[in-house]
Amino acid sequence: MANPIIKASTVTGFPEYLPAERLLEQQMLDKIRGVFESHGFCSIETPIVEKLEVLLSKSADTNKEMYVLGRLQADGPEEAKMGLRYDLTVPFARYVATHENELAFPFKRYQIQPCWRGERPKLGRYRQFKQCDIDIVAREKLAPEYDAFIPAVVCEAWNAIGFKNIELHISNRKILSGFATGLGIEKVGETLRVLDKLAKIGTDGVCEMLTELGLEKKQIDDCLKMATIATKDLSFADKVRTLGVQNEELESGLNEMTDCLKLFQTLSKTPFVADMSLVRGFDYYTGATYEIQLTGADFHEALGGGGRYDNLASTMTKSHLPGVGMSMGISRAIGVGLKLGLLKADQKTATQVLIVNVDKADKSKMIETARVLRERGIKAEMYLEGGKLAKQLKYANDKGIPYVWFDIDSTVRNMTSGEQTPADAKTWIPA
Amino acid sequence: MANPIIKASTVTGFPEYLPAERLLEQQMLDKIRGVFESHGFCSIETPIVEKLEVLLSKSADTNKEMYVLGRLQADGPEEAKMGLRYDLTVPFARYVATHENELAFPFKRYQIQPCWRGERPKLGRYRQFKQCDIDIVAREKLAPEYDAFIPAVVCEAWNAIGFKNIELHISNRKILSGFATGLGIEKVGETLRVLDKLAKIGTDGVCEMLTELGLEKKQIDDCLKMATIATKDLSFADKVRTLGVQNEELESGLNEMTDCLKLFQTLSKTPFVADMSLVRGFDYYTGATYEIQLTGADFHEALGGGGRYDNLASTMTKSHLPGVGMSMGISRAIGVGLKLGLLKADQKTATQVLIVNVDKADKSKMIETARVLRERGIKAEMYLEGGKLAKQLKYANDKGIPYVWFDIDSTVRNMTSGEQTPADAKTWIPA
Repeated sequence: MANPIIKASTVTGFPEYLPAERLLEQQMLDKIRGVFESHGFCSIETPIVEKLEVLLSKSADTNKEMYVLGRLQADGPEEAKMGLRYDLTVPFARYVATHENELAFPFKRYQIQPCWRGERPKLGRYRQFKQCDIDIVAREKLAPEYDAFIPAVVCEAWNAIGFKNIELHISNRKILSGFATGLGIEKVGETLRVLDKLAKIGTDGVCEMLTELGLEKKQIDDCLKMATIATKDLSFADKVRTLGVQNEELESGLNEMTDCLKLFQTLSKTPFVADMSLVRGFDYYTGATYEIQLTGADFHEALGGGGRYDNLASTMTKSHLPGVGMSMGISRAIGVGLKLGLLKADQKTATQVLIVNVDKADKSKMIETARVLRERGIKAEMYLEGGKLAKQLKYANDKGIPYVWFDIDSTVRNMTSGEQTPADAKTWIPA
Repeated sequence: MANPIIKASTVTGFPEYLPAERLLEQQMLDKIRGVFESHGFCSIETPIVEKLEVLLSKSADTNKEMYVLGRLQADGPEEAKMGLRYDLTVPFARYVATHENELAFPFKRYQIQPCWRGERPKLGRYRQFKQCDIDIVAREKLAPEYDAFIPAVVCEAWNAIGFKNIELHISNRKILSGFATGLGIEKVGETLRVLDKLAKIGTDGVCEMLTELGLEKKQIDDCLKMATIATKDLSFADKVRTLGVQNEELESGLNEMTDCLKLFQTLSKTPFVADMSLVRGFDYYTGATYEIQLTGADFHEALGGGGRYDNLASTMTKSHLPGVGMSMGISRAIGVGLKLGLLKADQKTATQVLIVNVDKADKSKMIETARVLRERGIKAEMYLEGGKLAKQLKYANDKGIPYVWFDIDSTVRNMTSGEQTPADAKTWIPA
């Protein structure tokens, strides 16, 4: 045999799971899907590529991380205009604009698909990562109730997959933006983007950057006071008002957020933090913004987030399509969950019983036994080729199959206890 | 409102489904997954990209259709070495080579993911298309029984998703290759690739191409006689033998295929055609080859296919890893099935009941009703924002929700019959 000439490795930053981890992922996605569908969200999937102009029109920070698709042997220049999606929100906006006349509004969709960003890989950060998104989009006006409904559904989904210790961090763009405007700051968008980096670069870093933006010391101090307000109840509004800034947008944001959190408490038992440092990177958010954080764990990045956008598809349709949505970073959650011991990938197979082949010549009885078991919904695998019993039992052990069926004398062995008892394929039930 | 500046269309050849079609696809994939898992296949997923050298080492015809990935703002030349998979077989071989020491053999896996080829789109052919593959791979030797098992499982899966009128076309590379060798043909591989085009270019075209390859008239005539043998029983072997060619590989192929079909008949009720014109394009097949064809329908391309390969990962590992597998072209099947009326996308939502909000101010009762229904496994959606009843009923109608719940007087309306009756959330069951 010649030596292998190609190293059989995956591409860096594009992870793949072993069967046990994949089974865990599948079970988690099934549960997430169950929660989403129970609340009336339908599934959509979009192609991996969007026109580059669609992706570029919505992205700011992600341009340099964007992947583009080309042909190995290109036919013409038009082939170069496709980019891989970096999130599920922009493709969703494009989907709604494309199919507007065929959808029922308010349109509730969930989408579970991978996204791609050419970032440096680290714990919980990959170049290909799976996201689970829900969004609700309406025509003309989207009721404020959905600002509370979306995070309630997402928190239910996190709980369903074993992430019980979570906290909803919530803010509202109108509050920060109105506050900055009320302070007389002109570069409001830029100021918000700097404040978003507070956790990453600290107070000094933020001060420096805001000074560079041309803000006065008093403005910077007030912004920092604002950004450190974080309450686990509705007292955030009064704390913000205590800072003494008068602005209509600010006041409207405070009222909106208070109403939202009141309804959220009716819909969900998940604790929240009204967190005035929360901005979220994407430009398209115009109201509520969210992040889901783990509590009591050594991981301080968000597991997902989202927010309300006034008109994400404005460049693609004349209709006004406001929406609100959130993402769950499922690849991140699995990476972090396994590392922190919140998740275990200890089930290696969905197979419930292996039928061993002790009489190789005639397979008709084992085939019939397996058929009867499968018709009863039991996942019954055959060791079709037969051979030495020790080898067949080793296979069951290696694969983690809990029961082995001996067709020769109709007995079944519990592979954990070693106990072997008579069984009838028509009635046997695995534990 | 400014005019839209970007046309909200998808990229040509990269189709996407409306919610009803997507629901159909989901239901089909759930059933396929159920069949695969019931037989002991575990799920794996691989990244969309593989190293270009891995893809190029196995592909012949597909090179010119291959997509490559780059960064919009590339950091360096290494970024250009990734290609999108054009099938699921090559990534699977690479996966097994990568994780060889962590898998239980014979390793049975299923994989449901999209693939990409830059072909001209037409009915049932897209640039992004979803495949459902199963493969079994062993170390050193894979028992011949699996050559019958794989198509039996795949036929069961096709039946499960409503494709009842199908036929397994089956051949064996050893038969055609041994036959050509026995005829004294030197360019065996090239000859097989020409014969593979019989249905596409006809007898005259094949004659011409084989003459160009340097074959004699007698050799060409015998090849064409061979390629027209197609039997619905085991008589193919004698018909081949009647052509009078003596060759060891040929004889071994005939016996292998006869044994395979005997076991297949025990495992499956799907009719077969022993079809000596069947070659399959990929070079890596070394034994049995398969195609699934629709019968009694105006579509004559394969819905999927596959075969046995002796050592697909030979360039990536020193181990000898023979396997056998088949693909189901699920995007093709949905496209063709909807067109031919074999499938219907008439269910628009999984939601079972919409709870309408007649009393906007206090939502606590509707939230509670929905919670009780959902806890009982009923997909219960709320019209959270309230408003005019007519608008809420229109939403239920547009979305195709079968029941509407009036929380104000605890009645439920069957949206098909219009009948409205009292109901209790703790006991109500949708039809």
